[in-house]
Amino acid sequence: MRTYKVIVAYDGTNYHGWQKQNLTAHTVQQVMEDTAAYLLGYSVPLNGSGRTDAGVHARGQCVSMEVAGKLSEDFMERWNALLPEDIKVQSMALVPNGFHARYKAVGKRYSYSVDIGEKPHVFTRKYACHYPKRLDVEAMKKAKEHLVGTHDFTAFTDDKTQRSKVRTIHRITIKEEGSKIVLSFYGTGFLYHMVRILTGTLLCVGDGRLRVQDVEEALRSRDRGRVGFVAPAIGLCLEEVYYEEKNL
Amino acid sequence: MRTYKVIVAYDGTNYHGWQKQNLTAHTVQQVMEDTAAYLLGYSVPLNGSGRTDAGVHARGQCVSMEVAGKLSEDFMERWNALLPEDIKVQSMALVPNGFHARYKAVGKRYSYSVDIGEKPHVFTRKYACHYPKRLDVEAMKKAKEHLVGTHDFTAFTDDKTQRSKVRTIHRITIKEEGSKIVLSFYGTGFLYHMVRILTGTLLCVGDGRLRVQDVEEALRSRDRGRVGFVAPAIGLCLEEVYYEEKNL
Repeated sequence: MRTYKVIVAYDGTNYHGWQKQNLTAHTVQQVMEDTAAYLLGYSVPLNGSGRTDAGVHARGQCVSMEVAGKLSEDFMERWNALLPEDIKVQSMALVPNGFHARYKAVGKRYSYSVDIGEKPHVFTRKYACHYPKRLDVEAMKKAKEHLVGTHDFTAFTDDKTQRSKVRTIHRITIKEEGSKIVLSFYGTGFLYHMVRILTGTLLCVGDGRLRVQDVEEALRSRDRGRVGFVAPAIGLCLEEVYYEEKNL
Repeated sequence: MRTYKVIVAYDGTNYHGWQKQNLTAHTVQQVMEDTAAYLLGYSVPLNGSGRTDAGVHARGQCVSMEVAGKLSEDFMERWNALLPEDIKVQSMALVPNGFHARYKAVGKRYSYSVDIGEKPHVFTRKYACHYPKRLDVEAMKKAKEHLVGTHDFTAFTDDKTQRSKVRTIHRITIKEEGSKIVLSFYGTGFLYHMVRILTGTLLCVGDGRLRVQDVEEALRSRDRGRVGFVAPAIGLCLEEVYYEEKNL
């Protein structure tokens, strides 16, 4: 048996997310497993580092795959030839057995792209959320500092289970590039809808619907009703999954 | 009567080009004229600076429009609200009557994007031509200098009419950005398929199928058979139309 670490990029527009659901939902995992099985002659489960929701993109989703033996040199090329144009394997590496994309992950980076132009940008319309408002980016930068650190993020998730909501955000960056604003979130892991709610909250700070101190108070309150909206899936992209603390 | 200069961006993927053809062809001009007529209450012909072929994109197509009277301040906003997500007006300016987007144009800039990555890039797949070869960019840069200037470009067009094929190319630039190469063509005007054949020819120089001197000889020969292929529409974008020599 051999284990491979597979990095894959996908345009999530046409998929019901990463995770396989049932035979009718069109998911990235299903398409990748079906094509891999076709090439290998047997089925292999692909373990993603985590789910991405319907419509969310990935530049660096990480997937582990256990196969019967070493793969041929041209396996990635043949796999990509079979995969649709909106899913492409970026790299494949043989790794020690026992590697698991989800259990071994120590952190992730997500980006969220916001198009603040008056009208939606024609060429990035599927990869950025159109939010045509004047934003106070300085206020957003102040607010995001309250979110960095180890906190109970109950207020910032739609996860209703009893599991721990404590997570660590190492860093949030906000970059302005013309009429585009890109928020990047580096953390140990993110709860259901967490990056999108963090983004929606920071956008509310930007447009004045929330004050900087409201963010700090919302975090402490653990009250979902006090934070911003769930920013649409379209702007979210899983950029990288980290397996070594030092890279995070 | 008032005349407006309209700058429009479109993703050409789903259109049979700019130019209105018949009632069934889905064209950018048709969609823009239909929506403008809906807002104005009467039909206006839109004059584009030139055709763009099926599948070709535009960041700066220029269109002139003669309307009965001065338009309301929010006309552009209302027009954009009505236009589909792949066509958006970027700006509208009142200009002196007599302005005509095609007849007054003194030059144009087109870009051609080539994705030379091993597998096609997931996020730019509709805006770049995938050409996964090692290219000798230095040779391409030498070859393009033979194309700059005023020449008879008969060898570089699929225009079979008797009209003059003399055009002036002011400048060609070739920029490498990671696994993407962008060629930019600045000129007085371009013949049918000209930018795409110039690109196909330079790509043939890049991958060794043509030598630098072949380009010079092909130009002089006026023989279409001696130059490269027509690069696919997908990578082509009309970036800007110039109305003053000094800007070109």
